[in-house]
Amino acid sequence: MKKFAVVLAGCGVFDGAEIHEATLTLLAIKKLGADYQCFAPDMEQHHVINHITGDEMNEKRNVLIESARIARGDIKNLSEFDPKDFDALIFPGGFGAAKNLSTVAFKGAEADVHTEVEKAVKTMLQAKKPIGALCISPAFIAKILGDVKVTIGQDEGTAQAIEAMGGTHITADHSDVVVDDEKLVFTTPCYMLDADITQIWDGAYNTVEAMLKFME
Amino acid sequence: MKKFAVVLAGCGVFDGAEIHEATLTLLAIKKLGADYQCFAPDMEQHHVINHITGDEMNEKRNVLIESARIARGDIKNLSEFDPKDFDALIFPGGFGAAKNLSTVAFKGAEADVHTEVEKAVKTMLQAKKPIGALCISPAFIAKILGDVKVTIGQDEGTAQAIEAMGGTHITADHSDVVVDDEKLVFTTPCYMLDADITQIWDGAYNTVEAMLKFME
Repeated sequence: MKKFAVVLAGCGVFDGAEIHEATLTLLAIKKLGADYQCFAPDMEQHHVINHITGDEMNEKRNVLIESARIARGDIKNLSEFDPKDFDALIFPGGFGAAKNLSTVAFKGAEADVHTEVEKAVKTMLQAKKPIGALCISPAFIAKILGDVKVTIGQDEGTAQAIEAMGGTHITADHSDVVVDDEKLVFTTPCYMLDADITQIWDGAYNTVEAMLKFME
Repeated sequence: MKKFAVVLAGCGVFDGAEIHEATLTLLAIKKLGADYQCFAPDMEQHHVINHITGDEMNEKRNVLIESARIARGDIKNLSEFDPKDFDALIFPGGFGAAKNLSTVAFKGAEADVHTEVEKAVKTMLQAKKPIGALCISPAFIAKILGDVKVTIGQDEGTAQAIEAMGGTHITADHSDVVVDDEKLVFTTPCYMLDADITQIWDGAYNTVEAMLKFME
């Protein structure tokens, strides 16, 4: 049974992992006969957002502890990730990918990437194992890998930032999966496009399916 | 297009709405051609649980604000719920259903139910519109309606509490939907059984599908 490492960035679209993308990635993995282990970095969230008003709340939350809500408690510190134990690595989206796992939301092409995220991606690349990324996550993949073909959908500003990082951005629609055949990177837009939850399911399912087909 | 009101109880299995059950209920509703509006009560959570350790955290969180994470901000105060605007009402599970929407987790058959939850259920019953409940939520439905046929799966203690409330508990497995034909209550066990996420999808999908078939 193929095993995915799923890296979460908190719990909630505006300051963490996008919940639908994360949950439907887990569902797709299991539906397609594979298994998963969730991971997240043990770090303070960049901030906490009230998801009704969009305002910042005067609170501190930890990315690993909040991500455990999506994982129902079964989650590991990303520092423990070992590529030997996994066949594939995948990152759902949400602003947490651009605020916690990286600083793409604030610095665009000049973004920093969390060292454990960078290490996970680079070691999987070396091991020639597939890497999936949904929504905004392909942006930090481009920051790490430079010359890589990805999609974040159709947002021009983010596409330009990806090109400035050395990547190639491919415009894509719901359910499309852009594949970099050399670096084995699989990306889909999800909520980077105006979408309903059925389109998130299509994107997550198609990405996981494409990654599994490569592993056959 | 049929419209569901989905009532959430926070964001996370141990102190709020179970995230997989909630997300997959939303996906099932849209997949089956219907639409939804999320609601939650504007109240303080009973407590905040660290989902890794299971320990209580020294924090306060609001059920409506945390539920908005699952709803991506598009959520209404349950006090605004009007049965005229909806064809069906559904409650995903998670401990929030038994700690925030009701006190089933603490008081069993002697539980209290949030007045807005009770009102929503009773007005839908009067309007002869279907009510769905997943996981532990059927327990507070029994507390409100008394003589009603429901399932929470196979947990004997909870089944006995439901019988003590005046309800009839039907033992059920993954993907089974127990239907009370008179009161139009549709229930399924989800994570009240040892389950993986594909079984949650089956339970949520089958429940929403059964409710929609009734509405045809």
